[in-house]
Amino acid sequence: MPYLNETHDPALKSWVESANIADNGFPVQNLPFSVFRHAGSSEPYRPCVAIGDQVLDLAALSDAQPWEGPAGEALRACRTDTLNGLMALGQKHWSALRLALSRALRTGETAMQPLLEPLLVPMAEAELGVPAHIGDYTDFYISLHHATSVGKQFRPDNPLLPNYKWVPIGYHGRASSIGVNQAFPRPVGQTRPAGDGAEPGFGPCRRLDYELELGIFVGQGNPQGTRVDIADAESHVFGLCILNDWSARDLQAWEYQPLGPFLAKNFASTISPWIVTLEALAPFRTAFERAESDPQPLPYLRMPDAGHGAFDIQLEVLLSTEQSRARDVAPALISSSNFGNAAYWSVAQLIAHHTVNGCNLAAGDLLGTGTLSGPGAGQEGSLLESSQGGKKPFALPWGEERTFLEDQDEVILRAHCSKPGYPTLSLGESRGRVLPALV
Amino acid sequence: MPYLNETHDPALKSWVESANIADNGFPVQNLPFSVFRHAGSSEPYRPCVAIGDQVLDLAALSDAQPWEGPAGEALRACRTDTLNGLMALGQKHWSALRLALSRALRTGETAMQPLLEPLLVPMAEAELGVPAHIGDYTDFYISLHHATSVGKQFRPDNPLLPNYKWVPIGYHGRASSIGVNQAFPRPVGQTRPAGDGAEPGFGPCRRLDYELELGIFVGQGNPQGTRVDIADAESHVFGLCILNDWSARDLQAWEYQPLGPFLAKNFASTISPWIVTLEALAPFRTAFERAESDPQPLPYLRMPDAGHGAFDIQLEVLLSTEQSRARDVAPALISSSNFGNAAYWSVAQLIAHHTVNGCNLAAGDLLGTGTLSGPGAGQEGSLLESSQGGKKPFALPWGEERTFLEDQDEVILRAHCSKPGYPTLSLGESRGRVLPALV
Repeated sequence: MPYLNETHDPALKSWVESANIADNGFPVQNLPFSVFRHAGSSEPYRPCVAIGDQVLDLAALSDAQPWEGPAGEALRACRTDTLNGLMALGQKHWSALRLALSRALRTGETAMQPLLEPLLVPMAEAELGVPAHIGDYTDFYISLHHATSVGKQFRPDNPLLPNYKWVPIGYHGRASSIGVNQAFPRPVGQTRPAGDGAEPGFGPCRRLDYELELGIFVGQGNPQGTRVDIADAESHVFGLCILNDWSARDLQAWEYQPLGPFLAKNFASTISPWIVTLEALAPFRTAFERAESDPQPLPYLRMPDAGHGAFDIQLEVLLSTEQSRARDVAPALISSSNFGNAAYWSVAQLIAHHTVNGCNLAAGDLLGTGTLSGPGAGQEGSLLESSQGGKKPFALPWGEERTFLEDQDEVILRAHCSKPGYPTLSLGESRGRVLPALV
Repeated sequence: MPYLNETHDPALKSWVESANIADNGFPVQNLPFSVFRHAGSSEPYRPCVAIGDQVLDLAALSDAQPWEGPAGEALRACRTDTLNGLMALGQKHWSALRLALSRALRTGETAMQPLLEPLLVPMAEAELGVPAHIGDYTDFYISLHHATSVGKQFRPDNPLLPNYKWVPIGYHGRASSIGVNQAFPRPVGQTRPAGDGAEPGFGPCRRLDYELELGIFVGQGNPQGTRVDIADAESHVFGLCILNDWSARDLQAWEYQPLGPFLAKNFASTISPWIVTLEALAPFRTAFERAESDPQPLPYLRMPDAGHGAFDIQLEVLLSTEQSRARDVAPALISSSNFGNAAYWSVAQLIAHHTVNGCNLAAGDLLGTGTLSGPGAGQEGSLLESSQGGKKPFALPWGEERTFLEDQDEVILRAHCSKPGYPTLSLGESRGRVLPALV
């Protein structure tokens, strides 16, 4: 089983009292990484770790040089404005830093508390940033349920293509437009002509959608011309975040043949600022299972540890609108899903596939899972699915209806891990708002 | 007409004598940019400009602070290991630096020669690098001839899709695997199953191909959520290079539906190290023309200066093999084409399209044109076309045949501009070699 150690002890508490409140999401067992600066400032971002309702400034901590060995080296890699340096060091260093932070932050620790306490900043006063320089962004398509129901709309006669159960389908996305807490103008572009010989439509997208995904941050990369064996694949993963891969469905339908989505996707992609490490997720590993009738993957994609190959991560989509906010109504939960039962391909399989041809991954690269729709109703990871391609509006609790997103709609994606006897781990949230199209 | 000034005077000569030799490719009218280091060293790369058979070290020149104003600012942006800083400054600065360099390097200049002469390094002793940090790489598909003949092979009943003449089709590519002078192992991957219910094939690619493209380096970018008007689009372009978008056709055929090419392309892409600025190319601007029967582009893609919207750039593909090199035979010219008559979409249209939805471009981003096949025989920009999908081998002068690339084959792409009464401008070459697949 992916390693469990003293940092996973469910009995651990922190001297940062807010970390011990039930379901606060950032207990001492979590310790997710991000970058922050003081809200309202324009200072450079600095690496940090979350504990309760506080962030711990790792750049400042590194000045005190509290640790030697790998934990100290990992901390020194945080003297910069991104997590790339820490990511590039590899699992041994990530794990050493996690252990050192766990020991320093837990209740009963007396030596470190005076050093750390002044380096805590309330989350409410911290502006979180994009945690890494993302060199390349790849988006996959790992939910069979999503691929099938979307495929039905784009290709009614041929929903699931013959390669789907063999190839972890992926494509390259745009790195420059990935952000946190994004607000972006509704994209404008071409749409399919109404009839033979007619001009394509042009104007603001009318079928603007979210996509509920997780993001996989690559830690150590691989040199060009080498591949990562599946048995070693997870050691190249730093951790997971939440990802909203906004999609302009009408633009997509017209542009995507034959080379894939382009302007339908590259105007914005919103991640959660927190990256939860694979080590933190170890208590939530579950079996990676397929139906008996599914083909055995090719050898380079065979999971050596399928018994713990998946992750039990709960996913939620919430929507607020101009009207709901004006009336002070809470955002509506419009969908919930689970990474564990939405994924046909595993994290390890994505890394092994991406590099089988010698493609080089680098620290800070982001891999999207693709839309994580579950098998049932209410588990749709996009409005394309919830509204059946726009044919079936759904009601919001405050009386509005939606098929696709309207201006000023805000989509909030949340993710967490919970089970009896273990503190809940939050992955934070991805939050983004649609502004009116530019004229 | 895109601006012509004293730097384009065909009578100009340089005191660097090799620049004046006919067809040397790097006369004082060219002045392309790259980065270099002394061959065999591991020192950081430094920005440079080509003059004859020499490179001029711009990082070293900047220490002398020879110029004030925009030329001086542009030179100061060269105190680093990439051209990104210079690219981000914009056209006024690029142009000022070009003028200052032209004046300093031309015959009759006496003041600057003693300063510059010690900063010249023979090209033979210089190792050229990837000239910019490439944040994002987009590949387009602008040759109608290529799209049609490749379309016939992938979709015999439907070669040219209905969107082609409306949408400048593009997709995101992999930035991390772009290099100069690449040698890479033949990619390995999945290929289409031989029959219903059979497993896909797996092994080294058997249909490895080159693609003859030009690369467009973005200079000043645009903020996310804004668009670049087509009238302003070329001012965002720093210059052009050569690009080989290596393609594994058998991997591509199996993986590309529905999200586009992925592992078939991302193992390597080889650019020329030299970037020729749009200003240097001004004497080779030609009319951007379409057939009467082609649709008028939508307003956001209408060329304000179509009379000079294209570039007359000659393109050549050469191939050497293990056998030809052992026998000391020169590489064989296997195809030649021209950017001007291969392109259905212009450089300005690509920038305007890419940003119409608010997608942000950044200094150093690379846009590939797509394979620049011409309309005639001998003008194919890929082996897929030359060998008619592998069905028709072609002969090499030393007695070998080829359909697709074999191990140790080296593909050399060259590009230049020439016309009577003007010195020939070279874009250098893209050179890459196929190594045996990793076991």
